[in-house]
Amino acid sequence: MNYKLISKLLGYILLIETAFMAPSLILSLVERDGSSYGFLIPMAIAVFLGLILINLKIKKNSLSPRDGILTVTASWVLVSIIGALPLCISAGMTYVDSFFEIVSGFTTTGASVISGIESFPRSVVLWRSITHWIGGMGILVFTVGLLPKLGVGAFQIFKAESPGPVAGKIESRISQSSKRLYIIYIILTLALFILLKLAGMPVFDSLVHTFGVLGTGGFSSYNDSLMSYNGNAVHFILAIFMFLSSTNFAIYALLSKKKFKEVIQNDELKLWILIIVVAIALITIDLFSKGYSSLFMAFRDSAFQVTSISSTSGFANADYELWPSFSKFILIILMIFGGCAGSTGGGIKVVRISILLKLIKREMQKATHPKAVLPVISDGKSLSDEVVLSINAYLGTYFVIAVLSTGLVTLSGVDVITGFSSVATTLSNVGPGFGDIGPTKNFHFYSDFFKLYFSLLMLLGRLEFFTIMALFTRGRHRKEIIKL
Amino acid sequence: MNYKLISKLLGYILLIETAFMAPSLILSLVERDGSSYGFLIPMAIAVFLGLILINLKIKKNSLSPRDGILTVTASWVLVSIIGALPLCISAGMTYVDSFFEIVSGFTTTGASVISGIESFPRSVVLWRSITHWIGGMGILVFTVGLLPKLGVGAFQIFKAESPGPVAGKIESRISQSSKRLYIIYIILTLALFILLKLAGMPVFDSLVHTFGVLGTGGFSSYNDSLMSYNGNAVHFILAIFMFLSSTNFAIYALLSKKKFKEVIQNDELKLWILIIVVAIALITIDLFSKGYSSLFMAFRDSAFQVTSISSTSGFANADYELWPSFSKFILIILMIFGGCAGSTGGGIKVVRISILLKLIKREMQKATHPKAVLPVISDGKSLSDEVVLSINAYLGTYFVIAVLSTGLVTLSGVDVITGFSSVATTLSNVGPGFGDIGPTKNFHFYSDFFKLYFSLLMLLGRLEFFTIMALFTRGRHRKEIIKL
Repeated sequence: MNYKLISKLLGYILLIETAFMAPSLILSLVERDGSSYGFLIPMAIAVFLGLILINLKIKKNSLSPRDGILTVTASWVLVSIIGALPLCISAGMTYVDSFFEIVSGFTTTGASVISGIESFPRSVVLWRSITHWIGGMGILVFTVGLLPKLGVGAFQIFKAESPGPVAGKIESRISQSSKRLYIIYIILTLALFILLKLAGMPVFDSLVHTFGVLGTGGFSSYNDSLMSYNGNAVHFILAIFMFLSSTNFAIYALLSKKKFKEVIQNDELKLWILIIVVAIALITIDLFSKGYSSLFMAFRDSAFQVTSISSTSGFANADYELWPSFSKFILIILMIFGGCAGSTGGGIKVVRISILLKLIKREMQKATHPKAVLPVISDGKSLSDEVVLSINAYLGTYFVIAVLSTGLVTLSGVDVITGFSSVATTLSNVGPGFGDIGPTKNFHFYSDFFKLYFSLLMLLGRLEFFTIMALFTRGRHRKEIIKL
Repeated sequence: MNYKLISKLLGYILLIETAFMAPSLILSLVERDGSSYGFLIPMAIAVFLGLILINLKIKKNSLSPRDGILTVTASWVLVSIIGALPLCISAGMTYVDSFFEIVSGFTTTGASVISGIESFPRSVVLWRSITHWIGGMGILVFTVGLLPKLGVGAFQIFKAESPGPVAGKIESRISQSSKRLYIIYIILTLALFILLKLAGMPVFDSLVHTFGVLGTGGFSSYNDSLMSYNGNAVHFILAIFMFLSSTNFAIYALLSKKKFKEVIQNDELKLWILIIVVAIALITIDLFSKGYSSLFMAFRDSAFQVTSISSTSGFANADYELWPSFSKFILIILMIFGGCAGSTGGGIKVVRISILLKLIKREMQKATHPKAVLPVISDGKSLSDEVVLSINAYLGTYFVIAVLSTGLVTLSGVDVITGFSSVATTLSNVGPGFGDIGPTKNFHFYSDFFKLYFSLLMLLGRLEFFTIMALFTRGRHRKEIIKL
């Protein structure tokens, strides 16, 4: 392990975090809300630590894949440890609550322990939302920039699943395609902010919701999320951008290059659109037929909740806990599926569902054509059995972790639906769930032990299990190295 | 398709069913309970039809795998169509209710629409339970005798998963090993009946519960299953035999041949015992710590419910719907897992869970050893990627069917837990579930449409999905044939 280089990289991460805290510090100074120390203290710690770390003398300028994984995991944990301080210092929350809230921010989950965010200093609310935006950016670096570079075991999954820059060979060099994705991220950010502003949302609220939507996070500046927000335009704008944020960013890269044929052939995109359209239609009909105020409102709320849960944002514009069982069940399934690979969305990702369905279809064909060679074909290319197995192992891991965790969480005394949806919503980085953590409630009632456990689940989900778990597997370290 | 030979085989099946109805007819004549016509009519129909069919002139004495699948599926449906008549004629139930109840019998599910079975004629109650015993015997013929003979696609799953007669090469000829299994089945039947009798259960009730346990069905002769049955011995005897009935029968064959080393190396058996022991221990502690009457009763009821649900029997000796969330959640998971392959138990089968866990372990190792060749090893033998994929496809199919069906069932207005557990309990052939179909309730409130839909799920689960679905896949028929 090249601990020195890892430490140096973490030093840079700390300095970047400090830079991102600056806007909140400025806001707190301008508004004289008394939160300045909440930012100054962590910023000072981060700068002090960061400067020491980046000045470490490095002997070897290369990382093993294991080093890469450790760097990513440590980054997420470290920025959360520091990032929790403003909430703790300026908003009087316990450190565990603050840590949960900020892990939820950086993992773009949006699960909260805060009731009544409107009474918090705006600088703290802004910081909480900025963590979503950084987290979204971070996950793009991680899955598009770093995972394929590591190019090992679990990461083959991504290679296989990414119909984007890597598999699709848009760019020969990854760093170039990464850059392209950040540009898209920033363009979408600006577009959403401007649209919200035009639709009449105040500047501060527009910023908060823009950060939440782009990172598919879900922290709002309103106590009840968007449930009492009037103005239909805002609901639809948010729905469209939640959809866009959880669509594979490689699609936009392809579109910008006018490679329309590759876009049309993309199997994940097709299934993704199909899932969203069918889910919106079914829930609209279910709500309307069971007495929702109007067909328009049923459509609006269905479109908003479907894109919100599918994209793993977790904003709420209606108390879907009160919806009929059929609509609720669809939302639970969407929560598990999540968004597309190569986006800021969480969950098991649509591409894995797509490949699982193809595998099932092949096995059915095999029952009558046992000797035929029938590869699983995705985006017009046949996948090796090894890659398909990796994807299945990923799905299996999700369910094993979900089952064991739900078992553990039910020990706290919550009912099965609350327990399962607490696990699913954190593991998929959605935010709210069902039962006692429904859209009008949150995680505050769990004990510190469970808050820390859910923080772990959010990190596991965000960093795609294997990456973290790989750190704990024994055995010879790999010889392959990554030149930086 | 060799329809003539298929029809001839179905003719024999009908005659066998008639023979199995005879004891109930005799009982109804002895007790003069007025149910005789309920048996005479279906017996006459079955004999008439059966005699015509077995006298068909056969040109070709061979079946394609597709023919084999069709024969099995048609057998289960046909015996249910005829077998439902006694309930319809003698007990005044609607035909759909009778069909649901008897499909539940033959598939050894034990889900019921009857409240107050004690007021039914005993001959009808006996017939209902005999269907469990036939169903259990039938599933042994099917999975141990027929599936490996077909030796294709989905059936490779069984080959792979069966550490028994086929893969373990106990016998070179399958018919011989099948015979051995029936002898084991009959020995276990006699042993349980004698033990229940010795423990003080009346003859009739002993018979009913013996049939229910051996087939891992779950129909009782008591209105509340075993909830008010006094006599601890009976509870423990049933628990032990439910465990034995859902253990791979090949294990007994190995034991009878003193091949202890192979038994000890059997991965499915190890995981199966681990699951049962851990589940009993955890639920005992959970119940006792939350105020159950005594540690002994907590242990008794935990052991009974764990073996009952794991074995997919579905007898109830306590209202587990009132148990704490943690215990309930464990039971839900056990319901999905089911028993061992090569037993009368249902569910996705422990061997598939075992192989999934091995796959996950391998993928984690691969993250740090990407170039190592790491096969998935089961029972000391390495499995091909193709076989592991088949097993994953099976698990995927279970979840896809469960999700789509739960969606459909929630449309009836039931809550999500009732909907999901109705699907899981029928698909895994357990019987009762949670919520509105908990141990003190049943399926009577569902509409006819849903009763028929659940009948389909019971058949799908019992006949291992692919076999039925393979009938509906298009494409060239296979050339391979089976000589009978």
